[in-house]
Amino acid sequence: MTIYSENPITGEHVRTELVETSQADVATMCVAADRAGKDLARRSLAWRAELLDTVANTLEDDAEEIIALADEETGLGATRLRGEHARTCFQFRFFSDVVRDGGFLEASIDHSHESPMGPLPDLRRQLEPLGVIGVFGASNFPLAFSVPGGDTASALAAGCSVVIKAHPAHPRTSMRTYSCLERAARGVGAPEGTLGLVFGLDAGTALVCDEHVAAVGFTGSLGAGRVLFDQAQSRAVPIPFYGELGSVNPLVVTPAAATQRATTLGEGLVASVTLGSGQFCTKPGLLFVPIGEAGDQLVAAAAAAVERSSGATMLTTAIRDRFETGVARLENAVGLTRLALSTRAASNAGSFAALYEMDVATLSLERDAVMTEYFGALAIVVRYASLDELIDAIASLEAALTFSLHVGEDDEAAPALLAAGARRAGRVIVNGFPTGVGVSWSMHHGGPYPASTNALHTSVGATAVRRWLRPVSYQGVPAAWLPATLLDENPLNIPQRVDGVSRAPRDH
Amino acid sequence: MTIYSENPITGEHVRTELVETSQADVATMCVAADRAGKDLARRSLAWRAELLDTVANTLEDDAEEIIALADEETGLGATRLRGEHARTCFQFRFFSDVVRDGGFLEASIDHSHESPMGPLPDLRRQLEPLGVIGVFGASNFPLAFSVPGGDTASALAAGCSVVIKAHPAHPRTSMRTYSCLERAARGVGAPEGTLGLVFGLDAGTALVCDEHVAAVGFTGSLGAGRVLFDQAQSRAVPIPFYGELGSVNPLVVTPAAATQRATTLGEGLVASVTLGSGQFCTKPGLLFVPIGEAGDQLVAAAAAAVERSSGATMLTTAIRDRFETGVARLENAVGLTRLALSTRAASNAGSFAALYEMDVATLSLERDAVMTEYFGALAIVVRYASLDELIDAIASLEAALTFSLHVGEDDEAAPALLAAGARRAGRVIVNGFPTGVGVSWSMHHGGPYPASTNALHTSVGATAVRRWLRPVSYQGVPAAWLPATLLDENPLNIPQRVDGVSRAPRDH
Repeated sequence: MTIYSENPITGEHVRTELVETSQADVATMCVAADRAGKDLARRSLAWRAELLDTVANTLEDDAEEIIALADEETGLGATRLRGEHARTCFQFRFFSDVVRDGGFLEASIDHSHESPMGPLPDLRRQLEPLGVIGVFGASNFPLAFSVPGGDTASALAAGCSVVIKAHPAHPRTSMRTYSCLERAARGVGAPEGTLGLVFGLDAGTALVCDEHVAAVGFTGSLGAGRVLFDQAQSRAVPIPFYGELGSVNPLVVTPAAATQRATTLGEGLVASVTLGSGQFCTKPGLLFVPIGEAGDQLVAAAAAAVERSSGATMLTTAIRDRFETGVARLENAVGLTRLALSTRAASNAGSFAALYEMDVATLSLERDAVMTEYFGALAIVVRYASLDELIDAIASLEAALTFSLHVGEDDEAAPALLAAGARRAGRVIVNGFPTGVGVSWSMHHGGPYPASTNALHTSVGATAVRRWLRPVSYQGVPAAWLPATLLDENPLNIPQRVDGVSRAPRDH
Repeated sequence: MTIYSENPITGEHVRTELVETSQADVATMCVAADRAGKDLARRSLAWRAELLDTVANTLEDDAEEIIALADEETGLGATRLRGEHARTCFQFRFFSDVVRDGGFLEASIDHSHESPMGPLPDLRRQLEPLGVIGVFGASNFPLAFSVPGGDTASALAAGCSVVIKAHPAHPRTSMRTYSCLERAARGVGAPEGTLGLVFGLDAGTALVCDEHVAAVGFTGSLGAGRVLFDQAQSRAVPIPFYGELGSVNPLVVTPAAATQRATTLGEGLVASVTLGSGQFCTKPGLLFVPIGEAGDQLVAAAAAAVERSSGATMLTTAIRDRFETGVARLENAVGLTRLALSTRAASNAGSFAALYEMDVATLSLERDAVMTEYFGALAIVVRYASLDELIDAIASLEAALTFSLHVGEDDEAAPALLAAGARRAGRVIVNGFPTGVGVSWSMHHGGPYPASTNALHTSVGATAVRRWLRPVSYQGVPAAWLPATLLDENPLNIPQRVDGVSRAPRDH
């Protein structure tokens, strides 16, 4: 079936040269990727780093064309897409640093030694690539979480081959960026089959179920993610499925914070809620604001900001329709008041921003309606009466990617709220907004289900590579046959643990 | 239902004071464990280490009684059980070292800095306990992989609470060792609910499905493990299920090794196959031996050793029956020759040791029959004609916990075989036998499915704690509210990554 590309602003449909990938073609690609994976696993860290740097270069070479195409397909605007493009290139270079650093291998050497159970043989452990990784591009980041996104970059950094399922919201951007990946791979002499790209829903299912695929990375909705997760787990050989799914992203304003900066917070909140038309998995969705005058002032400022907003252009008409169907359902929830509604954006996939309000009791009474991610510029203010009520409410929330806390100076409420938030989220933020997920060593972008399908892992940051690696221990293996990373001489100068003692690399 | 304890040697059934745990009691225990988990998560690393050391002490205090009970219930003999008891105590002390070291937290600090995408806020990441862990004791290690086993020790080391499902093969040992755990927990002031113990199949299912349980550790058969895995994955909130399952554990003898030490290898092989009546998940099951004179000599020595063996007492009559039903099926496989059969052990759960032989072609022709773990003292010799045939055969094997390789000096066949083995196993051994899994920093005891349900993790060794931890990132959190492990001053002197640079602790 021919694939069409939709412009969410003009509504124009472009017929592409692309077609949905047949199951047979998916299978062929996965066989090639499996063969490539065996080769990639033997390549040096330096080679892997060069591949990643070269991808960044090719993406930069074609920057203008990529950004223009992505804008046509997503309507996100050149400024945002320029930023996303920079982030995408940075991400490949960052993983190149991670590879060169070598700490991600968790190299560990135990020399043979005596133990209470008798002598133990020489044993050395490191992480090694899993094999073929399936990656599902997301709708809302045509670059940073799609074909050239973090899953692809981290899987290549891990030494894996990658077969990517393009998101239907931006097929031409997918193909265009894929050609950059391919050019880079050819440029550094990567084996045939290192990369693959497939289109279509059925191809995605075939990818998750293919016997050569060792793990899958996915960014998208809870519904689609759970279906694919179930497929991955019910295979004859189940595989890890890392789904970064929806999230309500609670945000708490303490009484002290509300008193000190009601208007700033009200406006800041709305800026975070409406950023990118609210189409971020980290968009704050439940805003806990104290009952009382300061809270009222904050909410009034937020409502005014929503009213002033010019609405939101959604990524596709389908996403717009799903958002508005959800809003219609939400309107029927008992105990919920609509505080503000923006005008509708004057574009084909145009929609609105909206703000609702309710009390804490409604959180449980209308749990299904209010504890759901609304993928769009919508948030619900939850007015709380006391710290105890607030902490109980946080404990009752579904797990989230983020938990944000706005506090006053030396705010006595902070420690208990931070602890409660850390139990329900992957990232805890003080006096900041959750949108904006930096690519860095300490980033964790994940959380307990349903924020993600696996609370142990992240889809952003250095440790995202851990998802594509498995440990292998080498017992009694002579030095001549050991990987260089596990040698006593540590020729690659990577972090190692030697006889239980953590050793940093020598200074360069 | 009252629980009986069976003596596999005498056949005596002892009526215990124990009863199967009701679903309501499982639920109550999990609620208490959840509450305890929140408290445990706040305790210091030093306290956690003290808990682990105290468990080791209480187990040592009661050593003689525990060993005698375990012998009554398993028939494994005092020598083996004394060793297992020492290992079990060592394991708690080892995890105490792991906790004090602090490297397992993966503490990482990124100070706020400029990036190509603009300024990034201060961000700090560490691993934090998951909550309540369900642990399933194994039949074959009444101590080291049961109530006081590695799953329990690593979960407590991670700061989690633990509810354990006792294995029915040793209920009294389970209860007795559990009382040591409880005494230790009380001794150091652990919160109520830190530990729980349940009995019975239904209680096990209830544990896997309980909403408060955050992850499960299991050691046992592929059949039982897959059923529980499926339950864990199909929950409304799926949880990680770490099953360490069956394994065929291929072992390869190269032509050079066979030529150099045929008799030693033949006898060594059988010693490994019959150790503990072959009831180890690391028992070598498929023995690749070259066709030709040296191989013949090796096989003859192995067959003679099996004939000399006095048979095997199995852990229970049920395990004996399952083993012998399997052997009867195997006898019907086409292309398989029985080389040797020992006498039957003169005990109630007595069985035999057996050795079979076949060629490489039979590996695929009779795949279901021969590529299965026979939990008992049975192995199949696979005679290969060439290195190419051998490498293809290894690639076709189901994944395993271990891959052993016996080579000659400077054996040219070694590198290709090592690479092939590392792709299909979690631990690769040169000139050694896979039985014997040392508790150490570099141990990996796991492997791709069906060796385990999750190739990324291990059930033995320091990194076993990683299964019970999830990352949390703290963004913009003032020092006063940060965990001590994430402070710039590094007061606990643990390994940290600071602004991307790995830092070992200061010398003590």
